Amino acid sequence: MFAARKINAARVNQRLAHLAQFGRTGEGGITRFALTAEEKAATDAVAAWMAEAGLEVRRDAAGNLFGRLPGRRQGPAVLTGSHLDSVPNGGNFDGPLGVLGALEAVQSMREQGAVPELPIEVVSFMGEEGSRFPWGLMGSSFLNGTFPCDQLAAMKDRQGISLEEALRQYGARPEAVHSAAVPAGRYAAYVEMHIEQAGVLESHNLPVGIVTGIAGMRQLRAVIRGRAEHAGACPMELRRDPMPAAAELVLAAERLARESDPATRATVGFLQASPGAANVIPAQVELTLDIRDLDGARRDACVERVRAALAEICRRRGLEGELVVEHTSPPVRCHPELISTMAAAARSLGREPFQLPSGAVHDAANVAALCPVGMIFVRSRGGLSHCPEEYTSPEDVAAGTELLAETLWRIAAVEWERWPEP
Amino acid sequence: MFAARKINAARVNQRLAHLAQFGRTGEGGITRFALTAEEKAATDAVAAWMAEAGLEVRRDAAGNLFGRLPGRRQGPAVLTGSHLDSVPNGGNFDGPLGVLGALEAVQSMREQGAVPELPIEVVSFMGEEGSRFPWGLMGSSFLNGTFPCDQLAAMKDRQGISLEEALRQYGARPEAVHSAAVPAGRYAAYVEMHIEQAGVLESHNLPVGIVTGIAGMRQLRAVIRGRAEHAGACPMELRRDPMPAAAELVLAAERLARESDPATRATVGFLQASPGAANVIPAQVELTLDIRDLDGARRDACVERVRAALAEICRRRGLEGELVVEHTSPPVRCHPELISTMAAAARSLGREPFQLPSGAVHDAANVAALCPVGMIFVRSRGGLSHCPEEYTSPEDVAAGTELLAETLWRIAAVEWERWPEP
Repeated sequence: MFAARKINAARVNQRLAHLAQFGRTGEGGITRFALTAEEKAATDAVAAWMAEAGLEVRRDAAGNLFGRLPGRRQGPAVLTGSHLDSVPNGGNFDGPLGVLGALEAVQSMREQGAVPELPIEVVSFMGEEGSRFPWGLMGSSFLNGTFPCDQLAAMKDRQGISLEEALRQYGARPEAVHSAAVPAGRYAAYVEMHIEQAGVLESHNLPVGIVTGIAGMRQLRAVIRGRAEHAGACPMELRRDPMPAAAELVLAAERLARESDPATRATVGFLQASPGAANVIPAQVELTLDIRDLDGARRDACVERVRAALAEICRRRGLEGELVVEHTSPPVRCHPELISTMAAAARSLGREPFQLPSGAVHDAANVAALCPVGMIFVRSRGGLSHCPEEYTSPEDVAAGTELLAETLWRIAAVEWERWPEP
Repeated sequence: MFAARKINAARVNQRLAHLAQFGRTGEGGITRFALTAEEKAATDAVAAWMAEAGLEVRRDAAGNLFGRLPGRRQGPAVLTGSHLDSVPNGGNFDGPLGVLGALEAVQSMREQGAVPELPIEVVSFMGEEGSRFPWGLMGSSFLNGTFPCDQLAAMKDRQGISLEEALRQYGARPEAVHSAAVPAGRYAAYVEMHIEQAGVLESHNLPVGIVTGIAGMRQLRAVIRGRAEHAGACPMELRRDPMPAAAELVLAAERLARESDPATRATVGFLQASPGAANVIPAQVELTLDIRDLDGARRDACVERVRAALAEICRRRGLEGELVVEHTSPPVRCHPELISTMAAAARSLGREPFQLPSGAVHDAANVAALCPVGMIFVRSRGGLSHCPEEYTSPEDVAAGTELLAETLWRIAAVEWERWPEP
């Protein structure tokens, strides 16, 4: 009835190439932040394709986009998709692959005249990366009701634009963002296809993999305050310089993650000295810490060791230090029923049902609060992502989309009411 | 004939307060970068005061401002002054004190009907701090002919505005900047009054001091290149992360300066990761190093040890590192004749002729290529500068201006032709 091998893979790759124009950087990468004109242009293009595919198109108050293919029976829909925003100067596959692959799956069902048992909804989540506002997985946290809606005016980007203002400029409805939250039971399951963003599949020479779980993330902001002084006039021994203290913290985070477990990761991706002039000892250094692990308790222990290191460094150097948790996401296990359905789908397509964990967080982690989730990973060349060199071959895009389409078709037919609670 | 005690100290303090409005920040500091509207407004105010004082006012093609008081005889002028620009969110005294003190000295001479032997020229040098373009002491390096005039179009600020464009916007004449260079022999001597920017005078409970020499500075830019990757997906052991390498370099610079000599100073005031997102391992980290010493050879040895440390760190971590010297100024000794003339002037005013070195570089270091130089330091409260808390009391401003006025009067009468070559 439905043949996943008949999907139009060329169409997915053409659409990927089309989206790459929105936010293209001089270095050949993509800068497409949440709620910008670039994200809007990409989302509008997808909405047009959804309409062309005959889906029922809908946008919620938080800027998420949905396209629905009705099923044979009423009932909760199978949700599938990803996001369209990017990190600064990131790549063209992280996010768009999951949206366009999902769209292709349902468009192909429609073209084949194959009606799934349950409805299938394609979603494009607003603002997943957290590169503009200090909140990752933003669109899906409106969906699962965990976004602190009273912070719309207070949460600002680095230009001082509030989230409220950004939502309004985008054409969303900040006054109604509560309405974007859906109750548990609305969706039967969520399946997200995403590039792997690491080199495991490549090292096994496999185009696709089935994800077992998603690492839990803690994003923190450290501020170290000292005393601004003249770089030449102030002797070394009289300084209260936060920069070497920040350097010690960076190295402590690296060491503590290495000592913890191979699955523990700590990253400092942003560091800023104020006032930031070559000839001034900084008054303050601010930096981000991103600490993740598949094991939540082990991750939290690492965070506490980093906190203790900061306190010791500041005490020894006569500085003030502060470490604030800006965002936490718990580790998530993919649902065993979804994993085994995906494995069967993979085998039916002649693919090895290879399983691997995800070190990166995805919208699936948020949707897990609403329904069982599963994920498909597609090989990233060189394991690279979040950079202009991010690349997934057209053949791998096709393999991933086939597996996603076959999975969705099977999931929509599962007697999901009898699954254990997520 | 001339009574330095009769200077109008209240006028200096009032003018300091007036200038503080140009570039005032929310934190109560001053941001007044080279060739901006803020620097222009401050310079225009000083030019108006110069005219009011009856000086011959002139601006050179590079944006330096001069006000000349004729002497009894023809001959090279005694030059005196400082600068009006600031670091980001800096103070109100670093620079303006030397310009306004010099102006007060000659205005008071004129009001007292006291004509100095040699002409005295008050100068306000454009762009001393190097906070906007990567070149410190800019105005005085046009004066001494060391600025690379072929770089006007290539040298850019962080907004991408070229120095050429900035000079034109300022109303200076980029096409004629060569004409700002003056030959040796044009000036008899240069005397600059400046806040100390450290705590030595305060610790000795003295309002003023006589500077023995100026530390030589080397400003460097280090770039460390690695590989941008996903902060969660990439295991610690597979990373080529430039951030911990930069952290090691910061700590190496601190340690090497400490191990060198109490007069050696190393500072990292600026550090930037690219792309600079919390969830991305940076592709590149760029940072500034400011390394100074009263002994040039010892300073250069410290720079070479920092360079070796960078090479070792990058080799060990599989990264590429680069260390570029962006600006060098040699250590400068103040002229012994000027020091002894200042000491006599101090004693005549009942001040202790306390001598101290300068850890900070000043325009005097550039003018030393043209004529003998001397400097007066005025106490900084808490040793602070380059910050909103920078403060010198009205009484100390008065003490410094008196000493400067008495010194200028005496210097203009010295038979400078018989001094040894600088």
